[in-house]
Amino acid sequence: MRDFSQDHRWLSINTATVRRSRGQEVPLPQILDACAQRGIRAISPWRDQVQAAGLAQVSRMVRSHGLSLSGYCRGGMFTAADEAGLKAADEDNLRALEEACELRAACLVLVVGGLPGALSGRAAHKDIGLAREQIRDGIGRLLERARAAGMPLAIEPLHPMYAADRASVNTMEQALDLCDALDPQCTGALGVAVDVYHTWWDPKLQQQIERAGRERVLAFHVCDWLIRTRDLLNDRGMMGDGVIDIPRIRGWVEAQGFEGYSEVEIFSAEDWWQRDMGEVLDACIARHRSAV
Amino acid sequence: MRDFSQDHRWLSINTATVRRSRGQEVPLPQILDACAQRGIRAISPWRDQVQAAGLAQVSRMVRSHGLSLSGYCRGGMFTAADEAGLKAADEDNLRALEEACELRAACLVLVVGGLPGALSGRAAHKDIGLAREQIRDGIGRLLERARAAGMPLAIEPLHPMYAADRASVNTMEQALDLCDALDPQCTGALGVAVDVYHTWWDPKLQQQIERAGRERVLAFHVCDWLIRTRDLLNDRGMMGDGVIDIPRIRGWVEAQGFEGYSEVEIFSAEDWWQRDMGEVLDACIARHRSAV
Repeated sequence: MRDFSQDHRWLSINTATVRRSRGQEVPLPQILDACAQRGIRAISPWRDQVQAAGLAQVSRMVRSHGLSLSGYCRGGMFTAADEAGLKAADEDNLRALEEACELRAACLVLVVGGLPGALSGRAAHKDIGLAREQIRDGIGRLLERARAAGMPLAIEPLHPMYAADRASVNTMEQALDLCDALDPQCTGALGVAVDVYHTWWDPKLQQQIERAGRERVLAFHVCDWLIRTRDLLNDRGMMGDGVIDIPRIRGWVEAQGFEGYSEVEIFSAEDWWQRDMGEVLDACIARHRSAV
Repeated sequence: MRDFSQDHRWLSINTATVRRSRGQEVPLPQILDACAQRGIRAISPWRDQVQAAGLAQVSRMVRSHGLSLSGYCRGGMFTAADEAGLKAADEDNLRALEEACELRAACLVLVVGGLPGALSGRAAHKDIGLAREQIRDGIGRLLERARAAGMPLAIEPLHPMYAADRASVNTMEQALDLCDALDPQCTGALGVAVDVYHTWWDPKLQQQIERAGRERVLAFHVCDWLIRTRDLLNDRGMMGDGVIDIPRIRGWVEAQGFEGYSEVEIFSAEDWWQRDMGEVLDACIARHRSAV
Protein backbone atom coordinates (compact mmCIF):
# COMPACT_ATOMS: atom_id res chain seq x y z
CA MET A 1 0.00 0.00 0.00
CA ARG A 2 1.35 3.38 -0.99
CA ASP A 3 2.46 5.82 1.71
CA PHE A 4 0.35 8.96 1.36
CA SER A 5 1.66 10.60 4.51
CA GLN A 6 4.65 12.35 2.95
CA ASP A 7 3.11 14.22 0.02
CA HIS A 8 -0.03 14.57 -2.06
CA ARG A 9 1.12 13.33 -5.43
CA TRP A 10 -1.79 10.89 -5.61
CA LEU A 11 -4.46 13.38 -4.60
CA SER A 12 -7.12 14.36 -7.11
CA ILE A 13 -9.77 16.98 -6.47
CA ASN A 14 -13.26 16.37 -7.75
CA THR A 15 -14.19 19.93 -8.55
CA ALA A 16 -17.64 19.60 -6.98
CA THR A 17 -15.76 19.71 -3.65
CA VAL A 18 -15.04 23.41 -4.22
CA ARG A 19 -18.00 24.17 -6.41
CA ARG A 20 -18.81 26.93 -3.95
CA SER A 21 -16.53 29.07 -1.83
CA ARG A 22 -18.15 30.97 1.05
CA GLY A 23 -21.45 29.92 -0.51
CA GLN A 24 -20.71 31.50 -3.92
CA GLU A 25 -20.24 29.54 -7.15
CA VAL A 26 -16.59 29.34 -8.21
CA PRO A 27 -15.78 29.30 -11.94
CA LEU A 28 -13.80 26.22 -12.94
CA PRO A 29 -10.73 28.20 -14.14
CA GLN A 30 -10.28 29.60 -10.63
CA ILE A 31 -10.46 26.08 -9.24
CA LEU A 32 -7.84 24.85 -11.68
CA ASP A 33 -5.51 27.73 -10.77
CA ALA A 34 -5.95 27.06 -7.06
CA CYS A 35 -5.23 23.37 -7.51
CA ALA A 36 -2.15 24.00 -9.64
CA GLN A 37 -0.80 26.53 -7.11
CA ARG A 38 -0.89 23.81 -4.46
CA GLY A 39 0.86 21.18 -6.53
CA ILE A 40 -2.31 19.16 -6.93
CA ARG A 41 -1.69 17.07 -10.01
CA ALA A 42 -5.16 15.80 -10.87
CA ILE A 43 -8.78 16.85 -10.92
CA SER A 44 -12.15 15.44 -11.90
CA PRO A 45 -14.39 18.18 -13.25
CA TRP A 46 -18.17 18.18 -13.67
CA ARG A 47 -19.71 18.77 -17.07
CA ASP A 48 -21.75 21.78 -16.02
CA GLN A 49 -18.61 23.48 -14.73
CA VAL A 50 -16.76 22.72 -17.97
CA GLN A 51 -19.64 24.00 -20.07
CA ALA A 52 -19.87 27.22 -18.10
CA ALA A 53 -16.17 27.93 -18.68
CA GLY A 54 -16.08 26.56 -22.23
CA LEU A 55 -14.51 23.24 -23.17
CA ALA A 56 -11.73 24.83 -25.22
CA GLN A 57 -10.57 27.07 -22.40
CA VAL A 58 -10.71 24.29 -19.85
CA SER A 59 -8.80 22.01 -22.16
CA ARG A 60 -6.08 24.64 -22.65
CA MET A 61 -5.81 25.27 -18.93
CA VAL A 62 -5.65 21.57 -18.07
CA ARG A 63 -2.74 21.20 -20.48
CA SER A 64 -0.89 24.35 -19.51
CA HIS A 65 -1.14 23.44 -15.82
CA GLY A 66 -0.09 19.87 -16.57
CA LEU A 67 -3.19 18.52 -14.82
CA SER A 68 -4.46 14.97 -15.23
CA LEU A 69 -8.13 14.01 -15.03
CA SER A 70 -8.72 11.08 -12.71
CA GLY A 71 -12.18 10.95 -14.27
CA TYR A 72 -14.84 13.06 -15.90
CA CYS A 73 -18.19 13.59 -14.17
CA ARG A 74 -20.37 12.41 -15.61
CA GLY A 75 -22.18 10.32 -18.19
CA GLY A 76 -25.11 8.04 -17.46
CA MET A 77 -28.74 8.81 -16.65
CA PHE A 78 -29.74 6.05 -19.06
CA THR A 79 -33.34 5.67 -17.93
CA ALA A 80 -36.30 7.36 -19.57
CA ALA A 81 -40.07 7.12 -19.79
CA ASP A 82 -40.14 6.92 -23.60
CA GLU A 83 -38.05 6.38 -26.71
CA ALA A 84 -37.39 10.08 -27.19
CA GLY A 85 -35.96 10.24 -23.69
CA LEU A 86 -33.71 7.27 -24.31
CA LYS A 87 -32.47 8.82 -27.55
CA ALA A 88 -31.77 12.14 -25.84
CA ALA A 89 -29.80 10.33 -23.14
CA ASP A 90 -27.75 8.50 -25.76
CA GLU A 91 -26.94 11.74 -27.55
CA ASP A 92 -25.97 13.47 -24.35
CA ASN A 93 -23.71 10.59 -23.43
CA LEU A 94 -21.91 10.82 -26.76
CA ARG A 95 -21.21 14.48 -26.04
CA ALA A 96 -19.90 13.55 -22.59
CA LEU A 97 -17.67 10.97 -24.24
CA GLU A 98 -16.25 13.53 -26.68
CA GLU A 99 -15.56 15.95 -23.83
CA ALA A 100 -13.84 13.25 -21.79
CA CYS A 101 -11.63 12.46 -24.77
CA GLU A 102 -10.79 16.12 -25.37
CA LEU A 103 -9.80 16.45 -21.71
CA ARG A 104 -7.90 13.14 -21.78
CA ALA A 105 -9.75 11.82 -18.76
CA ALA A 106 -8.73 8.50 -17.28
CA CYS A 107 -12.35 7.40 -17.52
CA LEU A 108 -15.88 8.64 -18.00
CA VAL A 109 -17.76 8.11 -14.74
CA LEU A 110 -21.32 6.81 -15.13
CA VAL A 111 -24.08 7.74 -12.71
CA VAL A 112 -26.59 5.48 -14.32
CA GLY A 113 -29.97 7.01 -13.45
CA GLY A 114 -32.94 5.86 -11.40
CA LEU A 115 -36.67 5.72 -11.97
CA PRO A 116 -37.38 8.07 -14.88
CA GLY A 117 -38.62 11.43 -13.71
CA ALA A 118 -37.78 10.79 -10.06
CA LEU A 119 -34.90 13.26 -9.99
CA SER A 120 -37.26 16.05 -10.95
CA GLY A 121 -39.78 14.95 -8.33
CA ARG A 122 -42.23 12.61 -10.06
CA ALA A 123 -41.41 9.03 -11.04
CA ALA A 124 -43.01 7.80 -14.26
CA HIS A 125 -43.30 4.29 -12.79
CA LYS A 126 -42.14 2.10 -9.90
CA ASP A 127 -40.48 -0.68 -11.88
CA ILE A 128 -36.86 -0.61 -10.75
CA GLY A 129 -36.27 -3.80 -12.71
CA LEU A 130 -37.22 -2.01 -15.92
CA ALA A 131 -34.93 0.89 -15.03
CA ARG A 132 -32.11 -1.59 -14.56
CA GLU A 133 -32.75 -3.11 -17.98
CA GLN A 134 -32.56 0.35 -19.56
CA ILE A 135 -29.33 0.98 -17.72
CA ARG A 136 -27.78 -2.24 -18.96
CA ASP A 137 -28.83 -1.53 -22.53
CA GLY A 138 -27.73 2.10 -22.37
CA ILE A 139 -24.28 1.20 -21.09
CA GLY A 140 -24.06 -1.42 -23.81
CA ARG A 141 -24.75 1.13 -26.54
CA LEU A 142 -22.34 3.68 -25.12
CA LEU A 143 -19.67 1.05 -24.63
CA GLU A 144 -19.37 0.45 -28.37
CA ARG A 145 -18.58 4.11 -28.97
CA ALA A 146 -16.37 4.42 -25.89
CA ARG A 147 -14.35 1.41 -26.92
CA ALA A 148 -13.77 2.91 -30.34
CA ALA A 149 -12.72 6.18 -28.73
CA GLY A 150 -10.40 4.47 -26.26
CA MET A 151 -12.23 5.98 -23.26
CA PRO A 152 -12.92 3.57 -20.38
CA LEU A 153 -16.37 3.72 -18.76
CA ALA A 154 -16.53 3.54 -14.98
CA ILE A 155 -19.89 2.48 -13.56
CA GLU A 156 -20.27 4.12 -10.15
CA PRO A 157 -22.54 2.16 -7.85
CA LEU A 158 -24.30 4.74 -5.71
CA HIS A 159 -25.47 4.31 -2.13
CA PRO A 160 -28.87 2.60 -1.96
CA MET A 161 -30.42 5.82 -0.66
CA TYR A 162 -30.09 7.12 -4.24
CA ALA A 163 -31.70 4.07 -5.86
CA ALA A 164 -34.91 5.91 -6.67
CA ASP A 165 -33.66 9.10 -8.23
CA ARG A 166 -29.97 8.97 -9.17
CA ALA A 167 -28.72 5.45 -9.75
CA SER A 168 -30.38 2.07 -9.57
CA VAL A 169 -26.98 0.39 -9.57
CA ASN A 170 -26.28 0.21 -5.86
CA THR A 171 -23.66 -2.37 -5.06
CA MET A 172 -20.27 -3.34 -6.39
CA GLU A 173 -21.62 -6.81 -7.05
CA GLN A 174 -24.39 -5.43 -9.25
CA ALA A 175 -21.97 -3.17 -11.14
CA LEU A 176 -19.56 -6.06 -11.71
CA ASP A 177 -22.38 -8.27 -12.91
CA LEU A 178 -22.99 -5.59 -15.57
CA CYS A 179 -19.31 -5.59 -16.46
CA ASP A 180 -19.37 -9.37 -16.82
CA ALA A 181 -22.43 -9.18 -19.06
CA LEU A 182 -21.26 -6.33 -21.27
CA ASP A 183 -17.51 -6.88 -21.38
CA PRO A 184 -16.96 -10.53 -20.59
CA GLN A 185 -13.43 -10.45 -22.00
CA CYS A 186 -12.50 -7.87 -19.38
CA THR A 187 -10.84 -5.64 -21.96
CA GLY A 188 -10.41 -2.63 -19.69
CA ALA A 189 -13.10 -0.70 -21.57
CA LEU A 190 -15.62 -1.09 -18.73
CA GLY A 191 -15.10 -1.05 -14.99
CA VAL A 192 -16.20 0.57 -11.77
CA ALA A 193 -15.57 3.68 -9.72
CA VAL A 194 -15.23 2.69 -6.06
CA ASP A 195 -16.48 5.51 -3.86
CA VAL A 196 -16.10 4.82 -0.15
CA TYR A 197 -19.19 6.90 0.65
CA HIS A 198 -21.38 4.69 -1.49
CA THR A 199 -19.85 1.34 -0.64
CA TRP A 200 -18.34 1.38 2.85
CA TRP A 201 -21.34 -0.32 4.46
CA ASP A 202 -21.37 -3.29 2.06
CA PRO A 203 -20.54 -6.59 3.77
CA LYS A 204 -19.30 -7.89 0.41
CA LEU A 205 -17.09 -4.90 -0.40
CA GLN A 206 -13.72 -6.56 0.07
CA GLN A 207 -14.84 -9.66 -1.78
CA GLN A 208 -16.15 -7.62 -4.71
CA ILE A 209 -13.04 -5.43 -4.91
CA GLU A 210 -11.06 -8.64 -5.21
CA ARG A 211 -13.46 -9.82 -7.89
CA ALA A 212 -13.03 -6.54 -9.78
CA GLY A 213 -9.29 -6.85 -9.80
CA ARG A 214 -6.88 -4.40 -11.32
CA GLU A 215 -8.62 -4.31 -14.69
CA ARG A 216 -11.95 -3.14 -13.39
CA VAL A 217 -11.15 -0.67 -10.62
CA LEU A 218 -10.93 2.47 -12.73
CA ALA A 219 -11.33 5.13 -10.04
CA PHE A 220 -11.22 5.51 -6.25
CA HIS A 221 -13.24 8.27 -4.57
CA VAL A 222 -13.04 9.37 -0.95
CA CYS A 223 -14.91 11.49 1.55
CA ASP A 224 -16.50 10.39 4.85
CA TRP A 225 -19.83 9.29 6.30
CA LEU A 226 -20.89 11.61 9.11
CA ILE A 227 -22.66 10.02 12.08
CA ARG A 228 -25.32 12.68 12.05
CA THR A 229 -25.97 13.04 8.34
CA ARG A 230 -28.48 15.86 7.95
CA ASP A 231 -29.13 15.65 4.24
CA LEU A 232 -29.18 12.69 1.89
CA LEU A 233 -27.25 14.46 -0.86
CA ASN A 234 -25.16 17.36 0.39
CA ASP A 235 -23.83 16.42 3.81
CA ARG A 236 -20.72 14.42 3.09
CA GLY A 237 -17.81 14.68 5.46
CA MET A 238 -14.11 15.43 5.02
CA MET A 239 -11.93 12.34 5.31
CA GLY A 240 -11.32 11.66 8.99
CA ASP A 241 -14.46 13.39 10.23
CA GLY A 242 -16.71 10.35 9.88
CA VAL A 243 -16.74 6.60 10.45
CA ILE A 244 -15.39 5.12 7.23
CA ASP A 245 -12.15 3.20 7.62
CA ILE A 246 -10.73 4.69 4.42
CA PRO A 247 -7.18 3.28 4.67
CA ARG A 248 -8.59 -0.21 5.01
CA ILE A 249 -10.63 0.14 1.83
CA ARG A 250 -7.72 1.77 -0.02
CA GLY A 251 -5.63 -1.17 1.06
CA TRP A 252 -8.10 -3.57 -0.55
CA VAL A 253 -8.12 -1.56 -3.76
CA GLU A 254 -4.35 -1.26 -3.92
CA ALA A 255 -3.92 -4.97 -3.18
CA GLN A 256 -5.48 -5.46 -6.60
CA GLY A 257 -2.78 -3.31 -8.16
CA PHE A 258 -4.66 -0.01 -8.36
CA GLU A 259 -2.10 2.79 -8.71
CA GLY A 260 -4.31 5.74 -9.62
CA TYR A 261 -5.38 8.87 -7.83
CA SER A 262 -7.44 9.10 -4.67
CA GLU A 263 -10.16 11.54 -5.69
CA VAL A 264 -11.80 13.71 -3.05
CA GLU A 265 -15.48 14.28 -3.76
CA ILE A 266 -17.39 16.15 -1.04
CA PHE A 267 -20.84 17.67 -1.43
CA SER A 268 -21.37 19.76 1.70
CA ALA A 269 -23.90 22.55 1.46
CA GLU A 270 -23.78 23.67 5.07
CA ASP A 271 -20.15 23.14 5.93
CA TRP A 272 -17.36 22.90 3.34
CA TRP A 273 -19.15 24.87 0.61
CA GLN A 274 -19.51 27.69 3.13
CA ARG A 275 -15.76 27.89 3.71
CA ASP A 276 -13.10 29.53 1.58
CA MET A 277 -11.91 27.41 -1.36
CA GLY A 278 -8.29 27.71 -0.28
CA GLU A 279 -9.08 26.41 3.18
CA VAL A 280 -10.97 23.47 1.70
CA LEU A 281 -8.16 22.52 -0.67
CA ASP A 282 -5.62 22.78 2.14
CA ALA A 283 -7.83 20.52 4.27
CA CYS A 284 -8.07 18.01 1.42
CA ILE A 285 -4.27 17.92 1.18
CA ALA A 286 -3.84 17.52 4.93
CA ARG A 287 -6.48 14.82 5.25
CA HIS A 288 -5.21 13.00 2.18
CA ARG A 289 -1.94 12.62 4.08
CA SER A 290 -3.44 11.79 7.50
CA ALA A 291 -6.75 10.00 6.90
CA VAL A 292 -6.68 8.32 3.49
CA MET B 1 -51.38 -13.81 -3.35
CA ARG B 2 -54.01 -12.77 -0.85
CA ASP B 3 -56.59 -10.16 -1.82
CA PHE B 4 -56.24 -7.22 0.55
CA SER B 5 -58.70 -4.97 -1.29
CA GLN B 6 -61.85 -6.13 0.49
CA ASP B 7 -60.93 -5.80 4.16
CA HIS B 8 -58.06 -5.21 6.55
CA ARG B 9 -57.93 -8.49 8.37
CA TRP B 10 -54.18 -8.82 7.63
CA LEU B 11 -53.28 -5.31 8.68
CA SER B 12 -51.04 -4.76 11.67
CA ILE B 13 -50.13 -1.37 13.07
CA ASN B 14 -46.64 -0.82 14.34
CA THR B 15 -47.43 1.56 17.14
CA ALA B 16 -44.56 3.90 16.26
CA THR B 17 -46.78 4.95 13.32
CA VAL B 18 -49.08 6.73 15.74
CA ARG B 19 -46.54 7.43 18.43
CA ARG B 20 -47.59 11.08 18.12
CA SER B 21 -50.95 12.61 17.26
CA ARG B 22 -50.93 16.29 16.26
CA GLY B 23 -47.33 16.30 17.47
CA GLN B 24 -48.19 15.05 20.99
CA GLU B 25 -47.10 11.70 22.42
CA VAL B 26 -49.97 9.21 22.58
CA PRO B 27 -50.03 6.68 25.45
CA LEU B 28 -50.09 3.10 24.18
CA PRO B 29 -53.47 2.26 25.77
CA GLN B 30 -55.11 4.96 23.66
CA ILE B 31 -53.49 3.49 20.57
CA LEU B 32 -54.74 0.02 21.43
CA ASP B 33 -58.28 1.33 21.93
CA ALA B 34 -58.22 3.19 18.62
CA CYS B 35 -56.98 0.12 16.78
CA ALA B 36 -59.57 -2.16 18.36
CA GLN B 37 -62.35 0.32 17.53
CA ARG B 38 -61.41 0.03 13.86
CA GLY B 39 -61.31 -3.74 13.76
CA ILE B 40 -57.52 -3.79 13.46
CA ARG B 41 -56.55 -7.23 14.67
CA ALA B 42 -52.81 -6.88 15.20
CA ILE B 43 -50.20 -4.44 16.44
CA SER B 44 -46.47 -4.32 16.99
CA PRO B 45 -45.63 -2.16 19.99
CA TRP B 46 -42.32 -0.58 20.95
CA ARG B 47 -40.71 -1.35 24.28
CA ASP B 48 -40.59 2.25 25.46
CA GLN B 49 -44.32 2.58 24.87
CA VAL B 50 -44.99 -0.64 26.75
CA GLN B 51 -42.80 0.42 29.66
CA ALA B 52 -44.50 3.80 29.93
CA ALA B 53 -47.92 2.15 30.19
CA GLY B 54 -46.74 -0.79 32.24
CA LEU B 55 -46.34 -4.32 30.90
CA ALA B 56 -49.17 -5.76 32.99
CA GLN B 57 -51.72 -3.22 31.79
CA VAL B 58 -50.65 -3.58 28.17
CA SER B 59 -50.82 -7.34 28.44
CA ARG B 60 -54.36 -7.18 29.89
CA MET B 61 -55.50 -4.79 27.18
CA VAL B 62 -53.98 -6.85 24.37
CA ARG B 63 -55.92 -9.88 25.65
CA SER B 64 -59.20 -8.11 26.34
CA HIS B 65 -59.16 -6.50 22.88
CA GLY B 66 -58.20 -9.82 21.28
CA LEU B 67 -55.17 -8.25 19.63
CA SER B 68 -52.30 -10.23 18.16
CA LEU B 69 -48.71 -9.00 18.06
CA SER B 70 -47.16 -9.36 14.61
CA GLY B 71 -43.87 -8.64 16.36
CA TYR B 72 -42.33 -6.88 19.31
CA CYS B 73 -40.02 -3.91 18.78
CA ARG B 74 -37.32 -4.49 19.62
CA GLY B 75 -34.33 -6.44 20.82
CA GLY B 76 -30.84 -6.12 19.42
CA MET B 77 -28.21 -3.39 19.81
CA PHE B 78 -25.64 -6.11 20.37
CA THR B 79 -22.54 -3.98 19.83
CA ALA B 80 -20.54 -2.33 22.59
CA ALA B 81 -17.16 -0.79 23.24
CA ASP B 82 -16.36 -3.05 26.20
CA GLU B 83 -17.38 -6.19 28.07
CA ALA B 84 -19.65 -4.30 30.45
CA GLY B 85 -21.54 -2.91 27.48
CA LEU B 86 -21.92 -6.35 25.94
CA LYS B 87 -23.21 -7.74 29.22
CA ALA B 88 -25.70 -4.89 29.62
CA ALA B 89 -26.96 -5.54 26.09
CA ASP B 90 -27.41 -9.23 26.84
CA GLU B 91 -29.38 -8.47 29.98
CA ASP B 92 -31.58 -5.97 28.22
CA ASN B 93 -32.27 -8.47 25.47
CA LEU B 94 -33.38 -11.06 28.01
CA ARG B 95 -35.87 -8.56 29.38
CA ALA B 96 -37.12 -7.88 25.84
CA LEU B 97 -37.52 -11.61 25.36
CA GLU B 98 -39.58 -11.95 28.52
CA GLU B 99 -41.82 -9.08 27.49
CA ALA B 100 -42.31 -10.55 24.03
CA CYS B 101 -43.35 -13.83 25.63
CA GLU B 102 -45.73 -12.13 28.04
CA LEU B 103 -47.35 -10.33 25.11
CA ARG B 104 -47.38 -13.49 22.97
CA ALA B 105 -45.63 -11.77 20.10
CA ALA B 106 -45.16 -13.66 16.85
CA CYS B 107 -41.48 -12.77 17.01
CA LEU B 108 -38.97 -10.49 18.69
CA VAL B 109 -37.62 -8.10 16.06
CA LEU B 110 -33.88 -7.46 16.23
CA VAL B 111 -32.35 -4.14 15.25
CA VAL B 112 -28.84 -5.34 15.69
CA GLY B 113 -26.83 -2.19 16.39
CA GLY B 114 -24.05 -0.35 14.57
CA LEU B 115 -20.68 1.04 15.57
CA PRO B 116 -20.74 1.29 19.36
CA GLY B 117 -21.50 4.82 20.52
CA ALA B 118 -22.51 6.05 17.07
CA LEU B 119 -26.18 6.33 17.94
CA SER B 120 -25.34 8.80 20.69
CA GLY B 121 -23.08 10.75 18.35
CA ARG B 122 -19.57 9.40 18.83
CA ALA B 123 -18.38 6.07 17.47
CA ALA B 124 -15.88 4.20 19.63
CA HIS B 125 -14.16 2.84 16.51
CA LYS B 126 -14.58 2.45 12.74
CA ASP B 127 -14.33 -1.33 12.50
CA ILE B 128 -17.66 -2.41 11.04
CA GLY B 129 -16.29 -5.93 10.71
CA LEU B 130 -15.81 -6.10 14.47
CA ALA B 131 -19.33 -4.76 15.02
CA ARG B 132 -20.64 -7.52 12.79
CA GLU B 133 -18.78 -10.14 14.80
CA GLN B 134 -20.34 -8.83 18.01
CA ILE B 135 -23.75 -8.93 16.33
CA ARG B 136 -23.31 -12.54 15.27
CA ASP B 137 -22.16 -13.57 18.73
CA GLY B 138 -24.90 -11.58 20.46
CA ILE B 139 -27.63 -13.13 18.36
CA GLY B 140 -26.11 -16.53 19.04
CA ARG B 141 -26.28 -16.04 22.80
CA LEU B 142 -29.83 -14.72 22.72
CA LEU B 143 -30.94 -17.50 20.39
CA GLU B 144 -30.28 -20.15 23.03
CA ARG B 145 -32.63 -18.41 25.44
CA ALA B 146 -35.20 -17.54 22.78
CA ARG B 147 -35.30 -21.11 21.57
CA ALA B 148 -35.97 -22.32 25.10
CA ALA B 149 -38.73 -19.74 25.46
CA GLY B 150 -40.29 -20.61 22.12
CA MET B 151 -39.94 -17.03 20.86
CA PRO B 152 -38.66 -16.68 17.26
CA LEU B 153 -36.05 -14.00 16.62
CA ALA B 154 -36.43 -11.88 13.47
CA ILE B 155 -33.27 -10.15 12.27
CA GLU B 156 -34.30 -6.96 10.51
CA PRO B 157 -31.77 -5.87 7.91
CA LEU B 158 -31.86 -2.07 7.93
CA HIS B 159 -31.25 0.23 4.99
CA PRO B 160 -27.52 0.83 4.44
CA MET B 161 -27.97 4.47 5.46
CA TYR B 162 -28.30 3.15 9.05
CA ALA B 163 -25.16 0.97 8.88
CA ALA B 164 -23.16 3.32 11.11
CA ASP B 165 -25.53 3.94 13.96
CA ARG B 166 -28.49 1.54 14.05
CA ALA B 167 -27.75 -1.75 12.32
CA SER B 168 -24.72 -3.09 10.53
CA VAL B 169 -26.81 -5.87 9.03
CA ASN B 170 -27.95 -4.22 5.83
CA THR B 171 -29.07 -6.77 3.28
CA MET B 172 -31.29 -9.82 3.26
CA GLU B 173 -28.35 -11.86 2.05
CA GLN B 174 -26.28 -10.83 5.05
CA ALA B 175 -29.14 -11.56 7.46
CA LEU B 176 -29.72 -14.97 5.92
CA ASP B 177 -26.03 -15.77 6.09
CA LEU B 178 -26.36 -15.17 9.84
CA CYS B 179 -29.38 -17.47 9.96
CA ASP B 180 -27.44 -20.16 8.13
CA ALA B 181 -24.53 -19.81 10.53
CA LEU B 182 -26.56 -19.74 13.75
CA ASP B 183 -29.50 -21.98 12.92
CA PRO B 184 -28.32 -24.25 10.12
CA GLN B 185 -31.16 -26.69 10.74
CA CYS B 186 -33.64 -23.94 9.92
CA THR B 187 -35.70 -24.72 13.00
CA GLY B 188 -37.92 -21.64 12.79
CA ALA B 189 -36.24 -20.11 15.84
CA LEU B 190 -34.36 -17.55 13.74
CA GLY B 191 -35.42 -15.66 10.64
CA VAL B 192 -35.81 -12.21 9.13
CA ALA B 193 -38.19 -9.29 9.14
CA VAL B 194 -38.60 -8.05 5.57
CA ASP B 195 -39.26 -4.31 5.57
CA VAL B 196 -39.86 -2.87 2.12
CA TYR B 197 -38.35 0.48 3.17
CA HIS B 198 -35.03 -1.15 4.01
CA THR B 199 -34.86 -3.64 1.18
CA TRP B 200 -36.77 -2.39 -1.87
CA TRP B 201 -33.61 -1.13 -3.66
CA ASP B 202 -31.78 -4.46 -3.38
CA PRO B 203 -31.16 -6.12 -6.76
CA LYS B 204 -31.05 -9.48 -4.99
CA LEU B 205 -34.26 -9.01 -2.99
CA GLN B 206 -36.43 -11.49 -4.87
CA GLN B 207 -33.67 -14.06 -4.93
CA GLN B 208 -33.04 -13.72 -1.20
CA ILE B 209 -36.74 -13.88 -0.31
CA GLU B 210 -36.83 -17.15 -2.20
CA ARG B 211 -33.77 -18.30 -0.30
CA ALA B 212 -35.42 -17.38 3.00
CA GLY B 213 -38.48 -19.43 2.22
CA ARG B 214 -41.48 -19.80 4.43
CA GLU B 215 -39.48 -20.81 7.48
CA ARG B 216 -37.38 -17.67 7.66
CA VAL B 217 -39.73 -14.85 6.70
CA LEU B 218 -41.10 -14.04 10.13
CA ALA B 219 -42.47 -10.56 9.51
CA PHE B 220 -43.38 -8.22 6.66
CA HIS B 221 -43.25 -4.44 7.19
CA VAL B 222 -44.56 -1.77 4.85
CA CYS B 223 -44.39 1.98 4.31
CA ASP B 224 -43.04 3.87 1.29
CA TRP B 225 -39.88 5.59 0.04
CA LEU B 226 -40.56 9.23 -0.73
CA ILE B 227 -38.77 10.69 -3.74
CA ARG B 228 -37.76 13.75 -1.79
CA THR B 229 -36.76 12.21 1.52
CA ARG B 230 -35.91 15.10 3.83
CA ASP B 231 -34.64 13.16 6.83
CA LEU B 232 -32.77 9.88 7.07
CA LEU B 233 -34.84 8.57 9.98
CA ASN B 234 -38.24 10.20 10.27
CA ASP B 235 -39.50 10.88 6.75
CA ARG B 236 -41.07 7.62 5.68
CA GLY B 237 -44.10 7.73 3.41
CA MET B 238 -47.56 6.19 3.61
CA MET B 239 -47.99 3.22 1.28
CA GLY B 240 -48.77 4.54 -2.20
CA ASP B 241 -47.13 7.92 -1.71
CA GLY B 242 -43.67 6.80 -2.77
CA VAL B 243 -41.93 4.63 -5.34
CA ILE B 244 -41.85 1.16 -3.78
CA ASP B 245 -43.76 -1.46 -5.74
CA ILE B 246 -45.16 -2.97 -2.53
CA PRO B 247 -47.57 -5.50 -4.10
CA ARG B 248 -44.73 -6.96 -6.13
CA ILE B 249 -42.61 -7.52 -3.02
CA ARG B 250 -45.60 -8.89 -1.07
CA GLY B 251 -46.14 -11.27 -3.96
CA TRP B 252 -42.60 -12.58 -3.60
CA VAL B 253 -43.04 -13.04 0.14
CA GLU B 254 -46.40 -14.76 -0.18
CA ALA B 255 -45.08 -17.01 -2.95
CA GLN B 256 -42.94 -18.54 -0.20
CA GLY B 257 -46.05 -19.27 1.82
CA PHE B 258 -46.00 -16.29 4.17
CA GLU B 259 -49.50 -15.86 5.61
CA GLY B 260 -48.87 -13.33 8.36
CA TYR B 261 -49.75 -9.70 8.87
CA SER B 262 -48.63 -6.76 6.79
CA GLU B 263 -47.30 -4.38 9.43
CA VAL B 264 -47.39 -0.65 8.79
CA GLU B 265 -44.38 1.11 10.28
CA ILE B 266 -44.09 4.81 9.45
CA PHE B 267 -41.79 7.30 11.19
CA SER B 268 -42.87 10.70 9.93
CA ALA B 269 -42.01 13.66 12.12
CA GLU B 270 -43.23 16.39 9.80
CA ASP B 271 -46.26 14.77 8.21
CA TRP B 272 -48.11 11.79 9.72
CA TRP B 273 -47.06 12.44 13.33
CA GLN B 274 -48.53 15.93 12.95
CA ARG B 275 -51.95 14.56 12.00
CA ASP B 276 -54.68 13.17 14.20
CA MET B 277 -54.20 9.53 15.19
CA GLY B 278 -57.62 8.58 13.89
CA GLU B 279 -56.89 10.05 10.48
CA VAL B 280 -53.59 8.17 10.33
CA LEU B 281 -55.15 4.83 11.25
CA ASP B 282 -57.92 5.35 8.72
CA ALA B 283 -55.29 6.11 6.06
CA CYS B 284 -53.40 2.94 7.00
CA ILE B 285 -56.57 0.91 6.51
CA ALA B 286 -57.37 2.55 3.18
CA ARG B 287 -53.85 2.20 1.83
CA HIS B 288 -53.57 -1.37 3.08
CA ARG B 289 -56.48 -2.12 0.78
CA SER B 290 -55.36 -0.04 -2.20
CA ALA B 291 -51.55 0.04 -2.19
CA VAL B 292 -50.24 -3.05 -0.38
